[in-house]
Amino acid sequence: MKMIIAIIQDKDSNRLTNALTENDFKATKLSTTGGFLREGNTTLMIGCEDDDVDDVLGILRKNCSQREQLVAPISPMGGNADSYIPKPVKVEVGGATVFVLPVDSFYKF
Amino acid sequence: MKMIIAIIQDKDSNRLTNALTENDFKATKLSTTGGFLREGNTTLMIGCEDDDVDDVLGILRKNCSQREQLVAPISPMGGNADSYIPKPVKVEVGGATVFVLPVDSFYKF
Amino acid sequence: MKMIIAIIQDKDSNRLTNALTENDFKATKLSTTGGFLREGNTTLMIGCEDDDVDDVLGILRKNCSQREQLVAPISPMGGNADSYIPKPVKVEVGGATVFVLPVDSFYKF
Ligand code: NI
Ligand code: NI
Ligand code: NI
Repeated sequence: MKMIIAIIQDKDSNRLTNALTENDFKATKLSTTGGFLREGNTTLMIGCEDDDVDDVLGILRKNCSQREQLVAPISPMGGNADSYIPKPVKVEVGGATVFVLPVDSFYKF
Repeated sequence: MKMIIAIIQDKDSNRLTNALTENDFKATKLSTTGGFLREGNTTLMIGCEDDDVDDVLGILRKNCSQREQLVAPISPMGGNADSYIPKPVKVEVGGATVFVLPVDSFYKF
Repeated sequence: MKMIIAIIQDKDSNRLTNALTENDFKATKLSTTGGFLREGNTTLMIGCEDDDVDDVLGILRKNCSQREQLVAPISPMGGNADSYIPKPVKVEVGGATVFVLPVDSFYKF
């Protein structure tokens, strides 16, 4: 048995938990408060058999990897918005920090 | 030293923390947010000596085991409630998912 | 890799996370709800290399150790506050409970 702790972005949380559930993995979502550290992040605890660790890691990689997204830039305040065509800018979104912890024993009561 | 992580139902939380305190065990309660997974659940972290793991497991088993409860069924909407005697139905309540993790070292500052 | 779990007082939380950030350590703050246990406490998860554990412990010790603080006592209700000079009283503040957990593997996606 392993305990997988994954810190992901809020925006990837629903897609990830859906994908975990479809594959019969159970996750517990911990609320993480802001502070200036990791604002907008979610922590999931996923317990799984040793043989299933690679599957869970694959689901995390597929649904939460850091990637670039094109977003419309905000028009400069007071600027003449008609005078130029705004170019979309790339921003990094997503990303997962994942710890796999050993488990001594596991029980269901 | 071990770190016991127990995911239990909210409704068993107070009784469990009372029982742990009476036995001089300290628990830290983590807020877990809903999502559709494990709605209404609470996660407790309990640090304890290796020799005390069985005691903590016993307290968890006693206070949080899954059991059946009889509840009054909801009358069918628009049905004629006078025409039958509602039979109480059995529902499963409680239950604990428990992970015992090894601890390399422990400090109090 | 290690996972350090530190339960500290809320009042030490900002100073600690500032100190961790200055030293390039990343912490994830978990919200812990009250109950009567550990009211006003915060739990931090800090992932770090084995060689950095002592540094993190030093930062925890420096910023969160239990210490005495002098506070002005509350005047007795209905008493004649002019008739005596209130003596500040010592109270214990701070304190950290720290678990260092082994990590099998670590990933960033
Ligand atoms: Ni195992
Ligand atoms: Ni031990
Ligand atoms: Ni290591």
